[in-house]
Amino acid sequence: MSQEAANGGSPRGRVLTLENMNPNVKRVEYAVRGPIVQRAVQIEKELKEGVKKPFTEVIKANIGDAHAMGQKPITFFRQVLALCSYPELLEDDKFPSDAKNRARRILEACGGHSIGAYSASQGIECIRQDVARFIERRDGGIPSNPDHIYLSTGASDAIVTMLKLLVCGEGRDRTGVMISIPQYPLYSAALADLAAVQINYYLDEEKCWGLDVAELRRSLTEARKHCNPRVLCIINPGNPTGQVQSRQCIEDVIRFAKEEHLFLMADEVYQDNVYAEGCKFHSFKKVLFEMGPEYSSTVEMASFHSTSKCYMGECGFRGGYMEVINMDPEVKAQLIKLVSVRLCPPIPGQALLDLVVNPPQPDEPSYTLFMKERTAVLAALAEKARLTEQIFNTVPGFTCNPVQGAMYTFPRLNLSQKAIDKAKEEGQIPDMFYCMKLLEEEGICLVPGSGFGQRDGTFHFRMTILPPTDKLKFVLEKIRDFHLRFTQEFS
Amino acid sequence: MSQEAANGGSPRGRVLTLENMNPNVKRVEYAVRGPIVQRAVQIEKELKEGVKKPFTEVIKANIGDAHAMGQKPITFFRQVLALCSYPELLEDDKFPSDAKNRARRILEACGGHSIGAYSASQGIECIRQDVARFIERRDGGIPSNPDHIYLSTGASDAIVTMLKLLVCGEGRDRTGVMISIPQYPLYSAALADLAAVQINYYLDEEKCWGLDVAELRRSLTEARKHCNPRVLCIINPGNPTGQVQSRQCIEDVIRFAKEEHLFLMADEVYQDNVYAEGCKFHSFKKVLFEMGPEYSSTVEMASFHSTSKCYMGECGFRGGYMEVINMDPEVKAQLIKLVSVRLCPPIPGQALLDLVVNPPQPDEPSYTLFMKERTAVLAALAEKARLTEQIFNTVPGFTCNPVQGAMYTFPRLNLSQKAIDKAKEEGQIPDMFYCMKLLEEEGICLVPGSGFGQRDGTFHFRMTILPPTDKLKFVLEKIRDFHLRFTQEFS
Repeated sequence: MSQEAANGGSPRGRVLTLENMNPNVKRVEYAVRGPIVQRAVQIEKELKEGVKKPFTEVIKANIGDAHAMGQKPITFFRQVLALCSYPELLEDDKFPSDAKNRARRILEACGGHSIGAYSASQGIECIRQDVARFIERRDGGIPSNPDHIYLSTGASDAIVTMLKLLVCGEGRDRTGVMISIPQYPLYSAALADLAAVQINYYLDEEKCWGLDVAELRRSLTEARKHCNPRVLCIINPGNPTGQVQSRQCIEDVIRFAKEEHLFLMADEVYQDNVYAEGCKFHSFKKVLFEMGPEYSSTVEMASFHSTSKCYMGECGFRGGYMEVINMDPEVKAQLIKLVSVRLCPPIPGQALLDLVVNPPQPDEPSYTLFMKERTAVLAALAEKARLTEQIFNTVPGFTCNPVQGAMYTFPRLNLSQKAIDKAKEEGQIPDMFYCMKLLEEEGICLVPGSGFGQRDGTFHFRMTILPPTDKLKFVLEKIRDFHLRFTQEFS
Repeated sequence: MSQEAANGGSPRGRVLTLENMNPNVKRVEYAVRGPIVQRAVQIEKELKEGVKKPFTEVIKANIGDAHAMGQKPITFFRQVLALCSYPELLEDDKFPSDAKNRARRILEACGGHSIGAYSASQGIECIRQDVARFIERRDGGIPSNPDHIYLSTGASDAIVTMLKLLVCGEGRDRTGVMISIPQYPLYSAALADLAAVQINYYLDEEKCWGLDVAELRRSLTEARKHCNPRVLCIINPGNPTGQVQSRQCIEDVIRFAKEEHLFLMADEVYQDNVYAEGCKFHSFKKVLFEMGPEYSSTVEMASFHSTSKCYMGECGFRGGYMEVINMDPEVKAQLIKLVSVRLCPPIPGQALLDLVVNPPQPDEPSYTLFMKERTAVLAALAEKARLTEQIFNTVPGFTCNPVQGAMYTFPRLNLSQKAIDKAKEEGQIPDMFYCMKLLEEEGICLVPGSGFGQRDGTFHFRMTILPPTDKLKFVLEKIRDFHLRFTQEFS
């Protein structure tokens, strides 16, 4: 190949190359949609083209995508969205009156009564009011101010925006952000993109992935030697680890954040996904306010929620919100300015969020069906959480904490030195080697633990518990069989 | 107030303040939703509360938000969206068969046949194929590859993503990005956020806001002294200036980009909005390929389109795409990784985009109504473009170029020295002073020219031509009366 061809046909080479592109972007990693998923998509194409494989379909248990796994949307939500999309349907007798009332109310709040108009960049005002009332009900009456609510394009959008506000300084003054290990890789990706310093604190696998303040302190002390730690991120219920924090633990974290002068970011998108006996979701906001004014009037915090998880699983709509507490009014003005550049979050997602925070009430015609659908989804998830833990703990070489909440299991794999050496030989991280082999042999797509972070020398994978119960059983058994084969092969 | 109270109740002050937040964010400005719009929203609240004003409603001509100004959605689009939202409607006789077929096809391409599932981060594959076919039809058969199409959350999202890839270097090596003045402030905002160097080239107001390569060269030569110019951004049809570039001009720009080794970004979101006799939209892609392989195989380019403008005006759905040409495959892999962090663009917006690029065909039942609605919107816009130019050019002290395309007029205001002095006295930029006064006295919300950039000593405002014809006439006359009064007051 001539030099010119190698340079993309130009003697000077391309304007934009791997060498001269944004170096922060190069550092970004996002395992949930990484190489293993790209290979899964390829395999699906091969299957379609008639290539013979030891399986007939690829089961994607790599991402918390409930509808893709067959979960049906909540009827009421979709009725209102259809009415908002095509308001001529408001004349149709087929739709219940409460769905029509919700749609009318949303449309009245839209410019020109159309969901095709932009909204205020912070989100439609009456929806922010509904969000505030939802938070108040959830938190036993602790007040929430609609002015402190920002609607977003999924929770990811709000999390990245909040991190962006917080990052400043150079060298040893660069902002450091504490994230749990294992973590959801949106955090590490956003920090790489922003060139912020990632500070790892480890969850305790032996204690059901619990969070210990001593570990937070160790990690912070260490980090202070080389950066300026300003932010503490918590995911509760945990992703990928599925633990649900106790009230006491949340109190300890808040006290720590106050003492150490840290901005708290509480990712609470799985707040309805709590399954384990004795576990309960406690919002950081509620605990903060119950700790008294010394805390509730000083600790700065943002908490995040989404339409993508819980019982809705409406990932495709990209709906979400954040509530900010004790934020400097001047910073809030900057935040509003920043979000205005992207104009507004998608209106269908805003409308959906409105229904999530303001669902059918007992005296409304859609209530019974809504509650039936909601309860069925959450009960099935609880059942699948139990099933997963139970089957995985029968696999020799697996250690699996209970899935107390969220949508994932993150079992620990005991890999032999021979397997580890073989992976190294192939230039792969051992758990990536394991998951790739599982994909090729069984058509099951998981995410290696290394994509979330784990203690050196330990290996895990993340699997969603979302497939329908029968299929989940099948997947769990397939993984067990594979693991036994794998163990034998590398013993 | 005690020091502690001033510090947000903490003796150490807040974690996050205006002083220690991200300095890039502080530099961001976005006039289209700036202070004047915030004041407009306030005035609307005052009117609701019964405060007496010299007007009864605020007319927001600050933003290209067609539905908010009363434009009705295209029936076919909304029918399909309702069907996708609530597939039970597929059984309903009320919907035409082509709408049902489109909905079925979209749903089949969605995970679990639900628009609530995530899609591939690059966008749903069959929609990217439809986009590629749309581009091929538009560009007279020049091939388009679905792998080079990236669906996005409105065009803004894709533009920011593309800029992000391109920014690197420090000091004199920092990436410089050439943007037109006047410009759409998304560009300056994104560059501030990315700490890239903004390089201004001026459009020629005397020549209908034409783009002259000599001015590009002047601006580039100047910029090379202090940064590394790598990108040239073009908006055609122009925003806020409404010019439509000739084929010759586009050829000159492409030749310049090749000679000067610049990455081209072509913002073509107003491609259907061309009104002036003798003007025609030429896509950069088509011209590039017609210039022969010397250009079409070397010049790196991204072009952007959106569901928010043209005849659809569906801003709230945040749909859009970009097509990349001659991008380094390794960079494309990085781009896919980067967009995967945000999971996917909203599915309702992707579905809407599919309908825009694949509208009803002559042999389909919805064709007649679709064409009637589309034609009516574009004809009304053409009429309003003419009306605006005509009335504004009767105002003494206004100079108004024809609105050849897009959705805005950007007239030049002759302000007296007395008015300029008065504005300075009040600490305001003169055209902000003018627009604020217009808002307070007439309830009309425009954006000052300073928000887009303009030659020193000249003053403008941007006004959309979107209000319904009668209301637009009323607005134009109100502005004329105001200007006469203003001129008298400060003569």
